[in-house]
Amino acid sequence: MENTNTAEARLSVVPQKFSFANFVLENGEVLEEVTLDFETYGVLNPARSNAILIAHAFSGDAHAALFHEGDKRPGWWDNMIGPGKAFDTGRYFVICSNVVGGCAGSTGPSSINPKTGKEYGLEFPQITIKDMVAAQKKLVEHLGIEKLYSIAGGSMGGMQVLEWLVSYPNSMRSAIPIATTARHSPQQIAFNEVGRQAIMADPKWCGGNYYNQEIPKAGLSVARMVGHITYMSEKSMAEKFGRRTKSEQEPTKFHADFEVEGYLRNRGDFFVRRFDANSYLYISKAMDLFDASDGRHLSEKFLELDAKLLVLAFKSDWLYPAHQSLEIVSACKIVGVPVTYLEIDADYGHDSFLLETETQSRVVKHFLARVDGSVS
Amino acid sequence: MENTNTAEARLSVVPQKFSFANFVLENGEVLEEVTLDFETYGVLNPARSNAILIAHAFSGDAHAALFHEGDKRPGWWDNMIGPGKAFDTGRYFVICSNVVGGCAGSTGPSSINPKTGKEYGLEFPQITIKDMVAAQKKLVEHLGIEKLYSIAGGSMGGMQVLEWLVSYPNSMRSAIPIATTARHSPQQIAFNEVGRQAIMADPKWCGGNYYNQEIPKAGLSVARMVGHITYMSEKSMAEKFGRRTKSEQEPTKFHADFEVEGYLRNRGDFFVRRFDANSYLYISKAMDLFDASDGRHLSEKFLELDAKLLVLAFKSDWLYPAHQSLEIVSACKIVGVPVTYLEIDADYGHDSFLLETETQSRVVKHFLARVDGSVS
Repeated sequence: MENTNTAEARLSVVPQKFSFANFVLENGEVLEEVTLDFETYGVLNPARSNAILIAHAFSGDAHAALFHEGDKRPGWWDNMIGPGKAFDTGRYFVICSNVVGGCAGSTGPSSINPKTGKEYGLEFPQITIKDMVAAQKKLVEHLGIEKLYSIAGGSMGGMQVLEWLVSYPNSMRSAIPIATTARHSPQQIAFNEVGRQAIMADPKWCGGNYYNQEIPKAGLSVARMVGHITYMSEKSMAEKFGRRTKSEQEPTKFHADFEVEGYLRNRGDFFVRRFDANSYLYISKAMDLFDASDGRHLSEKFLELDAKLLVLAFKSDWLYPAHQSLEIVSACKIVGVPVTYLEIDADYGHDSFLLETETQSRVVKHFLARVDGSVS
Repeated sequence: MENTNTAEARLSVVPQKFSFANFVLENGEVLEEVTLDFETYGVLNPARSNAILIAHAFSGDAHAALFHEGDKRPGWWDNMIGPGKAFDTGRYFVICSNVVGGCAGSTGPSSINPKTGKEYGLEFPQITIKDMVAAQKKLVEHLGIEKLYSIAGGSMGGMQVLEWLVSYPNSMRSAIPIATTARHSPQQIAFNEVGRQAIMADPKWCGGNYYNQEIPKAGLSVARMVGHITYMSEKSMAEKFGRRTKSEQEPTKFHADFEVEGYLRNRGDFFVRRFDANSYLYISKAMDLFDASDGRHLSEKFLELDAKLLVLAFKSDWLYPAHQSLEIVSACKIVGVPVTYLEIDADYGHDSFLLETETQSRVVKHFLARVDGSVS
């Protein structure tokens, strides 16, 4: 989608910070200081009843919509968040925060450890999806919101949505988990493990202590390339690249003969400039460890739940296949939680939750409108 | 499949060598000396009409069946080649050779360059699937065989089968391309490119000059891990590992929590002991460059073809999906080449061509029996 805003018409957003102390993690360890980077769009109504929390995916951040001062590209879900859009900022107060463990303003392994005055590196405790969500809960309470109107997110964002439902079953009126799963399959774990191995195989990773020297660029770039392939579909890659060869060849052997090779190399190179290798390790591990059902049947975890669900999957998403979304739908039905399910016919693979706007917008908008007659 | 041969009953096979000089490659470069490592099983009949050539996959070798002296495991397709098996060595003379560019006895980048007296490394020319097949043709002629009874192979072996059909359309009575494609899709190229990048990102790769020092073990291991995931199916991984966690944990962070992680690490470690990193680069590139249709419609390349085809695909193979096999079937039908197609319902993913024995054996055996009444 081309963004049609002119430079003058661009609405900018200012990142905010929320800090709290002595955060007890799921594994019992304590983070003395935690800061969350977050953004908000729209206006909180006097009843504080129109707030929607957006949870970001693996490599996402708090910048979900609008523009940062001077930026040419808007936030990562700007096609879905804004006046008249799926998450209509004319009606709803939308919040998005960078996860604990991240590297885009929130406390993570690249933050300074107050105990040592140096970056945490691998001294950072292993955070979980439950910890990410517990931190968000503190932010939401800090904003004076008792009950969210909704909570939505795709991929790892969807895992956070599920964890909210399990940890705080009375804290939202509705929820929209998209292209996600209650737990990773061995295949999903395996793809993450390859990324971690690629990073740790890079001698520049130095056991995680690379912050004041050269970063493990090569390893992180390979990890991102693996991820990128899994986010696309066979069809979307074929449409984007075919077998077109690059017009200008590099003079070395094993150059990128095909456009797809050059694209992947560029995406890998671009990624290393904005993402911390240790955050890659911690967050991907948090995804692999996540199990919303905690070894039981998922429906048992939904017994206390008082919310309506919209579950979305995409036909071409082979990384988070529809049967994983259907497991969530089944769990809802077994315990009588109202649920709507749609498998959207988009060709972008797992990336569809970011790229498909039309159907997602319609279904999300209608779903949100029917959650609660009191907001209109 | 458990091999039930006892140590005493094991039939051993001795690797053979075939050498020739001044091999002109597809790109015009010349290899002064070429050696092919090959094995044969069964007996060539006096009419020399019962020979079947087996082409191996990416990381395969000439050792397709029986045992090498002292080995505990037989060749890679021993479940398919032998007395009474799919490729019945009581009837047929089966040949398998390691490809040019390989590292299991045939000339490749780890061989000594006669011009310099040192290993080729990246001085080795970029070989293609056509070159692999041209070298096999010389071996087959050297064995006094004018027309093969059949030629069969899975994955990259299937690409070689297709190249035989295009390059030497009157040199075989039948052909069996399995789990393969006439050309790689961008997704297949992308997975190979990630493997190459992982190898070249390893500082120990040293631009390909690592033969008398430490090898790029870490990079090659990551490359192999990516490959392994793509060879399995979501279902076969789930059945093999589930989300079982390892009983004994390593004391470091980012250890292998799940069995699947430990398995992948072990497979990667095992692979680096037997496979050359530069061969990985050259052979994977040969696969990516391969296009049996050469930019035209594949059927046009089959106009001269005088052979019967059996095309096999596997339902759970997402790396080489059935629609790629169906393209080969369509091309045959358009030009009246007799073709039988079967999509086999096995759960092992792309590895099915190596692991599924029952259906493959039946269909291959019946197909071969009907190719030509003269061999019985």
